[in-house]
Amino acid sequence: MYKAPVEDIFFTLKHVTGLDRVLGAGRFGDLSDDLAHAILSEAGRFATEEVAPLAEIGDKQGARLVDGKVKTPDGWAGLYARWAEGGWNSLAAPEEFGGQALPHQLLVATLEMWNSGAMGFAIGPTLTIGAIEAIATHASDALKQKYLPKMVSGEWMGSMNLTEPHSGSDLGVLKTRAERRDDGTYRIFGQKIFITYGEHDFTDNIVHLVLARLPDAPAGSRGISLFLVPKFLVNDDGSLGARNDAYCHSLEHKMGIHASPTCTMIYGDGKFGAEKGAVGWLIGEENKGLACMFTMMNNARLAVGMQGVAICEAATQKAILYARERTQGRGPGWKGDGMSPIIEHPDVQRMLLTMKAITQGARSIAYACAHAIDMVEVTSGADRGFWQERANLLTPLAKSIPTDAGVEVSSLGVQVHGGMGYIEETGAARLYRDARIAPIYEGTNGIQAIDLIGRKLPLSGGAHVRGFIGELKAVVEDVRKSNRPGFGHTADKLAIALADLDEATEWLLAAQGEGRIAEALSGATPFQRQFGLTLTGVYLAKAGLADAGDGKDEARVALARFAAENLISETTALKDRVVNGAASLAAARAALG
Amino acid sequence: MYKAPVEDIFFTLKHVTGLDRVLGAGRFGDLSDDLAHAILSEAGRFATEEVAPLAEIGDKQGARLVDGKVKTPDGWAGLYARWAEGGWNSLAAPEEFGGQALPHQLLVATLEMWNSGAMGFAIGPTLTIGAIEAIATHASDALKQKYLPKMVSGEWMGSMNLTEPHSGSDLGVLKTRAERRDDGTYRIFGQKIFITYGEHDFTDNIVHLVLARLPDAPAGSRGISLFLVPKFLVNDDGSLGARNDAYCHSLEHKMGIHASPTCTMIYGDGKFGAEKGAVGWLIGEENKGLACMFTMMNNARLAVGMQGVAICEAATQKAILYARERTQGRGPGWKGDGMSPIIEHPDVQRMLLTMKAITQGARSIAYACAHAIDMVEVTSGADRGFWQERANLLTPLAKSIPTDAGVEVSSLGVQVHGGMGYIEETGAARLYRDARIAPIYEGTNGIQAIDLIGRKLPLSGGAHVRGFIGELKAVVEDVRKSNRPGFGHTADKLAIALADLDEATEWLLAAQGEGRIAEALSGATPFQRQFGLTLTGVYLAKAGLADAGDGKDEARVALARFAAENLISETTALKDRVVNGAASLAAARAALG
Repeated sequence: MYKAPVEDIFFTLKHVTGLDRVLGAGRFGDLSDDLAHAILSEAGRFATEEVAPLAEIGDKQGARLVDGKVKTPDGWAGLYARWAEGGWNSLAAPEEFGGQALPHQLLVATLEMWNSGAMGFAIGPTLTIGAIEAIATHASDALKQKYLPKMVSGEWMGSMNLTEPHSGSDLGVLKTRAERRDDGTYRIFGQKIFITYGEHDFTDNIVHLVLARLPDAPAGSRGISLFLVPKFLVNDDGSLGARNDAYCHSLEHKMGIHASPTCTMIYGDGKFGAEKGAVGWLIGEENKGLACMFTMMNNARLAVGMQGVAICEAATQKAILYARERTQGRGPGWKGDGMSPIIEHPDVQRMLLTMKAITQGARSIAYACAHAIDMVEVTSGADRGFWQERANLLTPLAKSIPTDAGVEVSSLGVQVHGGMGYIEETGAARLYRDARIAPIYEGTNGIQAIDLIGRKLPLSGGAHVRGFIGELKAVVEDVRKSNRPGFGHTADKLAIALADLDEATEWLLAAQGEGRIAEALSGATPFQRQFGLTLTGVYLAKAGLADAGDGKDEARVALARFAAENLISETTALKDRVVNGAASLAAARAALG
Repeated sequence: MYKAPVEDIFFTLKHVTGLDRVLGAGRFGDLSDDLAHAILSEAGRFATEEVAPLAEIGDKQGARLVDGKVKTPDGWAGLYARWAEGGWNSLAAPEEFGGQALPHQLLVATLEMWNSGAMGFAIGPTLTIGAIEAIATHASDALKQKYLPKMVSGEWMGSMNLTEPHSGSDLGVLKTRAERRDDGTYRIFGQKIFITYGEHDFTDNIVHLVLARLPDAPAGSRGISLFLVPKFLVNDDGSLGARNDAYCHSLEHKMGIHASPTCTMIYGDGKFGAEKGAVGWLIGEENKGLACMFTMMNNARLAVGMQGVAICEAATQKAILYARERTQGRGPGWKGDGMSPIIEHPDVQRMLLTMKAITQGARSIAYACAHAIDMVEVTSGADRGFWQERANLLTPLAKSIPTDAGVEVSSLGVQVHGGMGYIEETGAARLYRDARIAPIYEGTNGIQAIDLIGRKLPLSGGAHVRGFIGELKAVVEDVRKSNRPGFGHTADKLAIALADLDEATEWLLAAQGEGRIAEALSGATPFQRQFGLTLTGVYLAKAGLADAGDGKDEARVALARFAAENLISETTALKDRVVNGAASLAAARAALG
């Protein structure tokens, strides 16, 4: 059973990604280290004792559509109520609307824990947090006053309605229509698919944010507007009024996160209400809907990245526990009678250490992104610009690296369990099934890679990424200077990886500068993985340098060495794909028919 | 929908792995190229038109235990009947018992196609083929005459009963008991788990092969005997007699291959029959049961490898079809109006080409193993010894590389489908779920790696593997001499991979020779992957050299180049893990707690 790794999380925030710098900026008042730790401990308790025990029934029962209503699994509505009551929904929300305005680093740390407990649960509140952010940033004061207090308290949830059958990665072609009405409201007509928690029984009302197109809108992505469409209209006194003309038509049958209802939503077909059309209110300006979405895209992508971290952690814990208990054969150093625990086999140790290193690497990358987002909040001027670029650079990495890691680590977790891993009762299979959506939604990892090379490397003309690589090199120098024998060849191996990163980065900047776009695009995914592996190696080394005196210093040094000497040497092959792979890829296009 | 790639399969057998050499040996009479092609074509038709269409219902309904009887999905029993009627069960079985005694290469080619159609279907017959082989090789004439004709015709199926709850990879500790009776029969008592098709409604009788321990047996793996235990006793006239005291207690709830009943089998608890104990007949000698199993282990492991190839092929076909039809965004070279098919995006091309190259590499490795098994049959003396070593060397690779590939390729297949890949209706998710068992059963891939380095590299004192690497180098020289521009840097890249393979092989041989066993074991899995990647590169190049004149020559050259320039450069990092990775792995053991 999952146990929230509060100390590992707190260590990472404090010693790897820089929580202290954020707290020290004064913006968060009397939020001390101790208080931050206490908040994480309480979240860990809730995730361990309340969320995780409901994961299995959530997977088995799944969300069901009964007589037009979505029924969540037994006990899940109560879980949500206790979770909201605990104030977890309001952690990073504005104080003005009842939120606690805590650092983003604490938010994502709690997201990790909810998702480790049950990813199908955590995804709902995650989207509500995104909806709150969009409304708080772009909506009118009237809308904010009417909706935000109840969304922040958790009394109502939100949903994000973007995708249509022919319009997923490319939102510019969506067809859902919006019509203006004289009273300043709009009517929405269309179908949305893959709408997570579009309908459920957690809350009385659901606040849908819907992308749609006005009749006179420009074609493409510049003609899309964002609307607030509540399930029930809200009276001026805050009570619920008439049912809006919006409903869940069907649920998808998915490979995992069964408890999370994935809805096909129908807007404005006349099923509800006297007049056909779902009543909506504009958020932001007409035709600027995508821009409204983009402002919160960083946070949403990071939130999905946390799902990857969460799956990694849960799978690693489960595998280590199993490998300690399951006996089979005799490991080479085993002195006991009879069979040894399988953790005594070097091949099993390799799997477990790989899982542990990848997990901690993914966590560090994601938290570093959250740290950058916090730094944007606590700085101004050029500093703020710097941190905004850092957040922008890290976002595709924080989404893609942990979510790919979730697939890889949960697969290793199944393997460690042997035949029992393929049987649903151990839960290893559930993590493997749950993990597989995260590299897809909120922008596929291929799209993240294209964003990374096309928009993020060129920030400040390439100076930002070069500076970042310089910071990583400084860590490697610190490792070298530490002369700590436990680091083995860590510094040498990391130096190679960073030289590889230099070379691939410069090649991509040059290729794009010279208009060789197809060539650059060919290397996007290998580059992203290369960057992620390198960050994993460096962040683990940084953790090894911390000397926290908590009895885990040697173990962290050893894990950093394992990553450096066993995992990251792949960067050279990946760099080779980036700088030399495009020609053969183009030539082989014909082999695809 | 899956369409059997008969021409690709036949090309591989003929030009990559050497079907001609086997046919030319005279052992298979008038079996010509044309006849072999005709057999494969008919199998392809059956797999495409009969098996594949039942995959989805098989997954949805699964096998169910109803009133003690296992009900397979709607239509599956009829499918099995038509399949057996077509003679597919008897393809490689001895002629003496009604088999067709065709080359193993044709058998595995058909196994690929059945598994691509529906892995949950193919696994049942695969195990029957294994049971036939065990009985034909080791049982008494009386048992052979009584059981084999009906098993070869498909009238009865077989099952393999090895695993117990505490005894999986380590069979030496199994507890199922066998007691001698005066009439020469035995009584079996115990519980077996994970018994594939241990009970079903395909056939009237099921012939269980069961590993058990006699009361006076030596401890460990030298005290295990093999027994034939039919579901119904068989009268002397061949008709069915009393129900034996063996039954399916429950079915496992698995992540995939839902249609395949995975049974917990109870032997001898008195549920059936007057006297407690399941009646069994000894196969081979007492206490030599594991040796009987080992003789067919090569074939069984190869058969599981074929499941990996099969999933790769099915997933690749599905992804390419989807990528041609689904439009989204505009690829960099797209000249058409509106959105392009996603196959126009380089990142998608990279995924599809990776899938295609890995698939063809996995197929080549598996077929090369089948070819070696055939060569054992058609040669004698030193030649036969050589081919037996080749089959032994290739077996762990033929099991592990394609099954790991199945996981990797089906995961890419899900990714190409985007959100639709996570929805069960496309079938991409089913392939991903089905694929995950193959790296586990019939010896985990970690155990294959240990077998590879511990038992197979040392064959003939290392001379066999060195000779094999020499053969691979000769292919690379042929590529170099061909001066074909389409090969690009293929020869150079392959030469590096082969030098890496030399180095890692010699390091492992030396380490084991010097008793540094834990160090060698630490590198087993990276070495296995390294070997597989190298073979993939070389076999694709060999295919590129074939000049078959079928209009696909250039595409094969281009695919070989893509593999050489984009996939196999990882071998250098893997070699580094083998020769330099053990120390950091051992040092990090403490990080696992």
